[in-house]
Amino acid sequence: MRLRHNPDAPEFLASHPDIVEQNPENYRGKWQELFNNDHPLHIEVGTGKGQFVTGMALANPEINYIGIELFDSVLFKACEKVIEAGKPANLRLLKVDGADLEKYFSKNDVDRLYLNFSDPWPKSRHAKRRLTHEGFLKLYEAVLIDNGEIHFKTDNRGLFEYSLISMTDYGMKLNFLSLDLHADEPEGNIMTEYEEKFSAKGQPIYRVEAQFIAKK
Amino acid sequence: MRLRHNPDAPEFLASHPDIVEQNPENYRGKWQELFNNDHPLHIEVGTGKGQFVTGMALANPEINYIGIELFDSVLFKACEKVIEAGKPANLRLLKVDGADLEKYFSKNDVDRLYLNFSDPWPKSRHAKRRLTHEGFLKLYEAVLIDNGEIHFKTDNRGLFEYSLISMTDYGMKLNFLSLDLHADEPEGNIMTEYEEKFSAKGQPIYRVEAQFIAKK
Repeated sequence: MRLRHNPDAPEFLASHPDIVEQNPENYRGKWQELFNNDHPLHIEVGTGKGQFVTGMALANPEINYIGIELFDSVLFKACEKVIEAGKPANLRLLKVDGADLEKYFSKNDVDRLYLNFSDPWPKSRHAKRRLTHEGFLKLYEAVLIDNGEIHFKTDNRGLFEYSLISMTDYGMKLNFLSLDLHADEPEGNIMTEYEEKFSAKGQPIYRVEAQFIAKK
Repeated sequence: MRLRHNPDAPEFLASHPDIVEQNPENYRGKWQELFNNDHPLHIEVGTGKGQFVTGMALANPEINYIGIELFDSVLFKACEKVIEAGKPANLRLLKVDGADLEKYFSKNDVDRLYLNFSDPWPKSRHAKRRLTHEGFLKLYEAVLIDNGEIHFKTDNRGLFEYSLISMTDYGMKLNFLSLDLHADEPEGNIMTEYEEKFSAKGQPIYRVEAQFIAKK
């Protein structure tokens, strides 16, 4: 997600270290120290304006959440949302690049990874930038627990078709699949901003839970 | 597919042995003798009224086709269609149960298998009857060439979701996937009767090409 450049964003983010962790590399391998508990950690890569990760944190206080977003102006919106939500103690945001995930997380740090309405990068020459490209799956596997899961939803048909092939090519197992999420919406589904907009138009939302299979 | 009982169907089918092969068990392992050539053999399990398999036979004279259908009254319609099409020499119909596939085909007999708009059997307790259930995948693998493919299309979302999970659980590879076939219709797509009806209503047609991976 891109938004118009907001010149105030960097200072705003720096002035909220209780929400936006400023030195995430210090917690690599020991995120439990930051949250001061041993709850599972779920991360969202490409957290956008933060509605999903904030809603999940409020709904599931026994799980820790980290939302990752590259763009200042977008994370600014997410940070505002976290403030509105009363700064849940089990939620942090990181202004980092998903491609650098291993700088901030080590194997077994992450119990589950969410991807929501990721940029489809529809041109073939940009396929490597899609967050379900083999290169990213490798990164996710390197920070997740064994047999960890990716939960992915999108309204973009081309990206979803690509992702199912990419995930199964990688050897991942599909545990749950919906080609019209809101036709049989699971209890507790937290909608993203995009999801609200697109499903209101009657467009199907696609969703999959895909699991890495630990090599023996 | 079921149709109202047609009392004339059995006699009609028996009186067209040049279209409906009456002794398919005799050709197990040697279908090339029937067609009198060594062209690849593609079969459709659940051929319905025969529009797809007849269209394919006309479009691809260098491939042999067999349409399999259990119900007399349905195969009657398919047989009429084959007559209308001028009885293509590369096409036969069989009145047999898909569950008995191994009685009529042995390993390597079949180069590709089509499933089109199969009965969704939506109730969980009927899952074993779905033509993409593990039990049927085993049968298909037993008659296909190594690394053979199933080409499957349907308008039924629940059946397609189930099938992708069933196929990938089985270890099949997804080579091609479309969640809205007619939005980017491949050249040479032959529509079934169902497909014409449902896509005219704007409902998406789902399609996958899934490949068995030969055990080493």
